Amino acid sequence: MANGILLIECADQQGIVSSVTDFIYTNKGNIVELDQYLDHENGHFFMRIEWALDDFTIEKEKIGEYFNTLLAKRFDIRYNLYFNDEEPRMALFVTKLSHCLIDLLGRWYNGSLHVKIPVVISNHEYLRDIVEKFGLKFYHIPITKENKAEQEQKHLEILEENKIDFVVLARYMQIIGEGLIKSYESRIINIHHSFLPAFVGAKPYHAAYARGVKIIGATAHYVTEELDAGPIIEQEVSRVSHHNTINDLVQMGQDVEKITLAKAVKKHVLRKTLVVGNKTIIFN
Amino acid sequence: MANGILLIECADQQGIVSSVTDFIYTNKGNIVELDQYLDHENGHFFMRIEWALDDFTIEKEKIGEYFNTLLAKRFDIRYNLYFNDEEPRMALFVTKLSHCLIDLLGRWYNGSLHVKIPVVISNHEYLRDIVEKFGLKFYHIPITKENKAEQEQKHLEILEENKIDFVVLARYMQIIGEGLIKSYESRIINIHHSFLPAFVGAKPYHAAYARGVKIIGATAHYVTEELDAGPIIEQEVSRVSHHNTINDLVQMGQDVEKITLAKAVKKHVLRKTLVVGNKTIIFN
Amino acid sequence: MANGILLIECADQQGIVSSVTDFIYTNKGNIVELDQYLDHENGHFFMRIEWALDDFTIEKEKIGEYFNTLLAKRFDIRYNLYFNDEEPRMALFVTKLSHCLIDLLGRWYNGSLHVKIPVVISNHEYLRDIVEKFGLKFYHIPITKENKAEQEQKHLEILEENKIDFVVLARYMQIIGEGLIKSYESRIINIHHSFLPAFVGAKPYHAAYARGVKIIGATAHYVTEELDAGPIIEQEVSRVSHHNTINDLVQMGQDVEKITLAKAVKKHVLRKTLVVGNKTIIFN
Amino acid sequence: MANGILLIECADQQGIVSSVTDFIYTNKGNIVELDQYLDHENGHFFMRIEWALDDFTIEKEKIGEYFNTLLAKRFDIRYNLYFNDEEPRMALFVTKLSHCLIDLLGRWYNGSLHVKIPVVISNHEYLRDIVEKFGLKFYHIPITKENKAEQEQKHLEILEENKIDFVVLARYMQIIGEGLIKSYESRIINIHHSFLPAFVGAKPYHAAYARGVKIIGATAHYVTEELDAGPIIEQEVSRVSHHNTINDLVQMGQDVEKITLAKAVKKHVLRKTLVVGNKTIIFN
Repeated sequence: MANGILLIECADQQGIVSSVTDFIYTNKGNIVELDQYLDHENGHFFMRIEWALDDFTIEKEKIGEYFNTLLAKRFDIRYNLYFNDEEPRMALFVTKLSHCLIDLLGRWYNGSLHVKIPVVISNHEYLRDIVEKFGLKFYHIPITKENKAEQEQKHLEILEENKIDFVVLARYMQIIGEGLIKSYESRIINIHHSFLPAFVGAKPYHAAYARGVKIIGATAHYVTEELDAGPIIEQEVSRVSHHNTINDLVQMGQDVEKITLAKAVKKHVLRKTLVVGNKTIIFN
Repeated sequence: MANGILLIECADQQGIVSSVTDFIYTNKGNIVELDQYLDHENGHFFMRIEWALDDFTIEKEKIGEYFNTLLAKRFDIRYNLYFNDEEPRMALFVTKLSHCLIDLLGRWYNGSLHVKIPVVISNHEYLRDIVEKFGLKFYHIPITKENKAEQEQKHLEILEENKIDFVVLARYMQIIGEGLIKSYESRIINIHHSFLPAFVGAKPYHAAYARGVKIIGATAHYVTEELDAGPIIEQEVSRVSHHNTINDLVQMGQDVEKITLAKAVKKHVLRKTLVVGNKTIIFN
Repeated sequence: MANGILLIECADQQGIVSSVTDFIYTNKGNIVELDQYLDHENGHFFMRIEWALDDFTIEKEKIGEYFNTLLAKRFDIRYNLYFNDEEPRMALFVTKLSHCLIDLLGRWYNGSLHVKIPVVISNHEYLRDIVEKFGLKFYHIPITKENKAEQEQKHLEILEENKIDFVVLARYMQIIGEGLIKSYESRIINIHHSFLPAFVGAKPYHAAYARGVKIIGATAHYVTEELDAGPIIEQEVSRVSHHNTINDLVQMGQDVEKITLAKAVKKHVLRKTLVVGNKTIIFN
Repeated sequence: MANGILLIECADQQGIVSSVTDFIYTNKGNIVELDQYLDHENGHFFMRIEWALDDFTIEKEKIGEYFNTLLAKRFDIRYNLYFNDEEPRMALFVTKLSHCLIDLLGRWYNGSLHVKIPVVISNHEYLRDIVEKFGLKFYHIPITKENKAEQEQKHLEILEENKIDFVVLARYMQIIGEGLIKSYESRIINIHHSFLPAFVGAKPYHAAYARGVKIIGATAHYVTEELDAGPIIEQEVSRVSHHNTINDLVQMGQDVEKITLAKAVKKHVLRKTLVVGNKTIIFN
């Protein structure tokens, strides 16, 4: 049977852990994973708790209501409740580069990503073939300076029609509009091809090459209105040398990008990420 | 135009580098990359030289003959000559796990692997669908204790028919027979899902979990008759913790496996590997 | 003021986390860090809790008694209670190599290691000078086949006289006797100069060189009677290439060894390690 | 006996490698290591060659003259000639933090750094004790806004008196003046406690914490007039999590800093670094 997952956030105060774990135990839930984090600086408390529903005495549909009534109000908790048998619906945005796309499609294909992919959206036709090979819907929404606002409206409609839960920018080479960012706050994951905050913006490998760094990296982050400045979910690096050309960096970087993005997506899907201000808490 | 690539091996002696580079320069070749290695212990010299053929005055078909006559005989050099516009023909062997397969197919699909894949061979039907999605030939050659010798003969026939240059075992869960190993010496690449020489043999993640290691790894190596003991081409690692179950190790390990294997395959394809005894030299 | 630290281990059962955190909160303790781990496979529960004693209403000397009476008996908890203002007393065993020794002495000197070092013991005189430069006691206890048992008795006496809490083998090139191992179970930390379980025993860099690995490593572990087979605390790795001689591996390995050992010692000192069977739990 | 080392730089042209290796061989030198790099973009050629002088027929004092006459003029080569039995004279600049200092002193003490350390200079008294424990000269040169220019003059005098070859800023918390930078171009190594170009300037760990990065780093670079912008020699990184406080980052960072700095210093000492524009070539 399924597991329930609660992501919890509140002011630090006595009795929260006890009360939440008691809520699970008393109702015959079997705790599978519990991880909490106390931000001393700001007096904030965060917790992720996952428990098996097999013998849980509160029926699935009522858990939210009960938790809200019995605990959330009492401790002034902000929370999200998920069930791990309900696969989130992910939309992919791509442009021309296929490495992140195929990596995610591969994970989806072999069942290790635990998502549905109702739609892939691109501003170009390049990747239609590979997307359709995998039996997925592909929308070509070309973007020009003139039609940008209008096409972003179309994005939003497609996402809504397809009941999309979160969006992954798998090397989508367009800046995302405010409307989409607001509608999907902390639910748009971008992969930036540098070790942020170094090399914000376009052509980071060219900049890395010019600076003569000995290590390159990639950063998966939630998208906010400021470019490449959103909360970081995951970062990975790779060693380079003076032998490597810009093209080498681009090639080597693709491996780092796709792994970093996939790790971030997986953490998001498993509900192991929590955004606090401009940072993330990543649970075990 | 194409580049020529020479992989050279001989006893260390005066004048080799000079003579080889002179051979290229005198005939108007433009050296693109030169890397050499001197094994002091054994007095052996190794070199990889790659040069542009654009203005090279010896015609492509004659380069081997000239090099052999003018240099190989003189210095008693063992060498291989390649051209980077001739994509090597790679056969993939797989069983049920798709992560290494899809990763390599993705790289082939976007043109970054520089190989042809005339055939994918499997002892199961599981991966036929994904292979055929990519438009490649899939052979199902089931293996039992009884038919093993016979089926290995079939393998060899298929490889021969398809003029296969090298074989990649992309998580192929069968031990390779002597015949194939001998026919494709230093041309069969296996990915082993541990940091060799730790955890040779079956179920390395189970063994790693039982030992309580803090880092797992993967090893790409050329296949020799002794199991998991061939020359290592590439190794990568990933940090784990006591929180991780065996299943976590298996999942996390898949990322390490596929990247390690792809790096090894790429080095092989670029003719940057040389086997010496039970080790490899990996050129820049 | 000081913090109290409880390391807790018991069968998984309802109400443990609640009861322990309540014990702290009710008595006006301020929880600074809480990390727990549930071993589903074996139904075991582990927790580390650290809290500020500033306003704690139970006096320091009585905490153990109260915890034992009110909680340990009730839940059948095995526990250890520590206070972070009581620096553990560490004995160092060394032979000839100074890199791990000086690294630990440096950390002790600048106050970042939080230990006392009442004594350094060696089977050679080589490192007396550097140890005495740092103002520490140095015992030269030479070991021969004939005097081994007797000298190990002397070790135990010195450790006892100096009220040693734990022992660090900082590249001590002798096998530790049963007596010492039994007296200091899970309290002797060794640094082995390989990525265990690869290359157990003597001369691991020679073995790594012979095998042609592309990555070397070091392993800090608690010493048990089976050589190099005790619970692993920390592992680190470093990339090598065919250019590296055995001597290069030895040199590069020294950096990995000293950092790995220091990390393990620090975790031990902060009471963040718990040995379970032949594995460790490492708390945040 | 000693080895000779030549670092060579010139426009790419036919016959350089041959001519240089012939120069060594013809005069009965035994090449120990040869590494070259061709910068295609700019048509520049770089080489490091190291050879044993045992049977070399040109006497040590004359090698420079002969090389200059026979080769440097012919190919318009810029070169430096070193001998590995002549330990370079290193000055250390420190402030209050001891981790990089003790790490370098430890390496010097056990003979693995191959330098002389005639002098340690500090703007504070804090580290006098540890420096003098190691038997080295310690100069306290306090810096204020008023005396800065004057004290920098004193620095230069001390360096000159002590015939210093290169300077290492081992967490020296003062900006280096123009005079010193000009006198020691490409010969002042600084360790910056971030993964440059991220977090230039003061308090990088605070900035990294505020940005919520998942990986921190350190960068060893040659000092140029622009702050933290000189040619990078070495970079290393370390993974962090939301559990880590600023103080944790500072502590964890110290391990990365000292290892990165030591690696850079070692490469400099072995004459394996070459500055080209604002980048470095790091030879094998």
